[in-house]
Amino acid sequence: MKIQLYELEQPKLNEPVMICGLPGSAFVGKFALDHLVSELPALALAEVYSDAFPSQVMIKEDGSSSLLRTELYYRKSPDGSKDAILLTGDAQPTGSEAEHVLAEFLIDFGREKFKISRLVTLGAYVTGTKSTEPRVFATGTDRDITTQLEKAGCILMRDGGITGMNGLLLGMGKVKGVEGYSLLGETPGFSFDPRASEIVLESLSRLAGITTDLKKLRQKGNDALETLKKIELMSGEQSSESELEPGQRKRLDYIS
Amino acid sequence: MKIQLYELEQPKLNEPVMICGLPGSAFVGKFALDHLVSELPALALAEVYSDAFPSQVMIKEDGSSSLLRTELYYRKSPDGSKDAILLTGDAQPTGSEAEHVLAEFLIDFGREKFKISRLVTLGAYVTGTKSTEPRVFATGTDRDITTQLEKAGCILMRDGGITGMNGLLLGMGKVKGVEGYSLLGETPGFSFDPRASEIVLESLSRLAGITTDLKKLRQKGNDALETLKKIELMSGEQSSESELEPGQRKRLDYIS
Amino acid sequence: MKIQLYELEQPKLNEPVMICGLPGSAFVGKFALDHLVSELPALALAEVYSDAFPSQVMIKEDGSSSLLRTELYYRKSPDGSKDAILLTGDAQPTGSEAEHVLAEFLIDFGREKFKISRLVTLGAYVTGTKSTEPRVFATGTDRDITTQLEKAGCILMRDGGITGMNGLLLGMGKVKGVEGYSLLGETPGFSFDPRASEIVLESLSRLAGITTDLKKLRQKGNDALETLKKIELMSGEQSSESELEPGQRKRLDYIS
Amino acid sequence: MKIQLYELEQPKLNEPVMICGLPGSAFVGKFALDHLVSELPALALAEVYSDAFPSQVMIKEDGSSSLLRTELYYRKSPDGSKDAILLTGDAQPTGSEAEHVLAEFLIDFGREKFKISRLVTLGAYVTGTKSTEPRVFATGTDRDITTQLEKAGCILMRDGGITGMNGLLLGMGKVKGVEGYSLLGETPGFSFDPRASEIVLESLSRLAGITTDLKKLRQKGNDALETLKKIELMSGEQSSESELEPGQRKRLDYIS
Repeated sequence: MKIQLYELEQPKLNEPVMICGLPGSAFVGKFALDHLVSELPALALAEVYSDAFPSQVMIKEDGSSSLLRTELYYRKSPDGSKDAILLTGDAQPTGSEAEHVLAEFLIDFGREKFKISRLVTLGAYVTGTKSTEPRVFATGTDRDITTQLEKAGCILMRDGGITGMNGLLLGMGKVKGVEGYSLLGETPGFSFDPRASEIVLESLSRLAGITTDLKKLRQKGNDALETLKKIELMSGEQSSESELEPGQRKRLDYIS
Repeated sequence: MKIQLYELEQPKLNEPVMICGLPGSAFVGKFALDHLVSELPALALAEVYSDAFPSQVMIKEDGSSSLLRTELYYRKSPDGSKDAILLTGDAQPTGSEAEHVLAEFLIDFGREKFKISRLVTLGAYVTGTKSTEPRVFATGTDRDITTQLEKAGCILMRDGGITGMNGLLLGMGKVKGVEGYSLLGETPGFSFDPRASEIVLESLSRLAGITTDLKKLRQKGNDALETLKKIELMSGEQSSESELEPGQRKRLDYIS
Repeated sequence: MKIQLYELEQPKLNEPVMICGLPGSAFVGKFALDHLVSELPALALAEVYSDAFPSQVMIKEDGSSSLLRTELYYRKSPDGSKDAILLTGDAQPTGSEAEHVLAEFLIDFGREKFKISRLVTLGAYVTGTKSTEPRVFATGTDRDITTQLEKAGCILMRDGGITGMNGLLLGMGKVKGVEGYSLLGETPGFSFDPRASEIVLESLSRLAGITTDLKKLRQKGNDALETLKKIELMSGEQSSESELEPGQRKRLDYIS
Repeated sequence: MKIQLYELEQPKLNEPVMICGLPGSAFVGKFALDHLVSELPALALAEVYSDAFPSQVMIKEDGSSSLLRTELYYRKSPDGSKDAILLTGDAQPTGSEAEHVLAEFLIDFGREKFKISRLVTLGAYVTGTKSTEPRVFATGTDRDITTQLEKAGCILMRDGGITGMNGLLLGMGKVKGVEGYSLLGETPGFSFDPRASEIVLESLSRLAGITTDLKKLRQKGNDALETLKKIELMSGEQSSESELEPGQRKRLDYIS
């Protein structure tokens, strides 16, 4: 397993919290992280390439293409309080060994370079049924954290497990002495679910004091959902995706 | 493949026997080992983390979560006779190379650090049909051992193989000069089978002189089986698992 | 992962372009590369063996057999302009890690030994439906390249991805500072499609000035298609492949 | 990938030919090799353990069990002509990378330790239909060899490939400068086929001058086939395998 990190900047950060959201069920974590990156806003910190990822290039709207990668951003807190490192990317690794190796690499980068004080992973709690009032499920690395999670209105999980990078980053952090928690937005899980991203970010705001304008997230999510419906209608009429108006495809960046 | 062992204590042990039981068919080996750990009782010796395991955190009843791991315990014999190292854990490795590497690592740890004199693996002999008088099937690393197995009332296997960590630990031990045997409790294999764990522990008692109160194992097993039935009834009525009374879920620790 | 490259010659090349086509959908890239090798013509440069490939020997018409391998050829430009390295082979690697490792090895070989100036990958754009006027789809590593692709009449891709070595070589080149593009011939993708190879080579001629007699490619393609039809008819009559006239099997080298 | 070879003897051999037959379709190669080992007879040379193999112990008739392994035997020629190394074992490796690594290790061991002059692999040519006069198909590393194969009455293969260790050992030998050939006995491939082993050994005798009494092979093969039929009959009557008379199971060593 080979991992190459390209540093884009070398900022000084104050015991940052590392917040992670990768593509996964209902795009809950990825949509939340992309919102944080654009709204805080956060600056590019590093790019990570690895044979841990699927063998593919992703093509961007301008016709150019790049290997799948993990992206790290940073945000210096305006008031001198804790800074943040944001971790997102194009894909999760291809298997359990690849996930372990990448998770350890990313945790070590955060610890050794920036002394990250806490790790948060955002993702989906898939139920298969639509809920009128979706909840945020959570687990943490120790009892202090789980108490905070309950105070913030999260439902504490009591059994089961979390698979993939959301679980692995949390568990690997714990082994390496980094406390943390995982926030999972309740979702039927059938397709893109921006509402689940929103409630997860509300919990994050209460727990970590990292607050953004969620109206923009709601707007962006609704635009994407509308475009998705349009595509479904069109495919019912056997039309092609190219009948979308210019700009509409853009709203689907998170779902392609 | 990366393996990290964290030693929790450094006891002096007298040519200990290493007894292994991991999650597998009907939870025979895992349930037996958890019983030994709590009833001997045994003390925590080491934790082993590895990318050999599935990529997951397991969530405990208190809401906190940890990476999957192998756990080692030790028990100093009260009468100065042979001590024991108990090996259990959350999961088996994800593939055959991972199983080989972890098995060799664990055998080497036992040999080099504690000069283990013998290796025992406990597991299931799956038949697919219910037996009124389940038997213990066995194989050993050499003829001396197989003779002892027969004297202790085990059915000596004559062909076939044992797959997974139960087979691999035994075979890897043999290559490294550690004699040993495998005790497999007959079970239909359809679900959790505490009776198979019980007969395997009876054989272990006769063979290794490691004896515990099996009434407790029977009680714990029956509690878990009752809870399982309740869940089945409830899922027939489309009710949720949360209708279980507090404490009942606890009995299912071995089956979750 | 182990890779062994055997150099067959050590030519001096002038900032060569590296053109890649491997077995894949409809044999578009492989058929195009084999045509370039025989018609430019190009000379053998190196053979690459690796455990990244499927475990198999391929048997040649003369009854001898060899491990699967990647083959590199070179062609010195007759007029002192840019030279070319041609990359083709028997198979693509067996998984995503193997693809990453081999792609990086091949790019590094081209960069360090020959300072390749540009990388081109040729392959298939599979649509599932037959087109009367098949198009060439394309993506590049940056905006300068994508502009050239559009000027050359290619359809610029705007989303999605390219999987396998065609995508990986392009993306790995970009990470390593080698610009490049991918030309994908539109094809239903059901079977061998020499027409898709032809239009891809037409685009390559416009973009890279590497021109060959495409009549020969068309003839060879038609011969192979005829033989394929014959085999289909025969298998309808439950006859054996051995009824093919001597020499006919040769035409199927690309499809076996 | 880890490979451990335990040398059991250190004989001096005269440019030995290495003859390989592993478990595979219809047990053609394995049954042939086991016959050679017992009838030449050959002596134990080395045992090879590796995480390339499936994770399993095999249980022997005496109730003891061992890790899966590759076994090497040697036979000094009685008349001072070329000696032989025989290579067989319990299983083929689990995947293509594992097959490559083990094949290279075994070829290197033969080359560096014993300067093997030639490599022969024995296996099955599966047709799916029963032939009254089964043939031996063959391929070699070069034209000299293929000419010898045709003279010995083998059908020279002209296309396709050989997968698994039979192909890989041959191809890896060629890359390393060891000439060789593969002899594949025609078989429907449905089950154990001792006749295919027999014709392959007849070809080997003509090509390499290694001759054994094939009556014994025929007798052993027929015994095993009879026992197999008996088991089929019994399973039709829902009886258990244990109704076999003592000693009958022994005949199935190759098929278990």
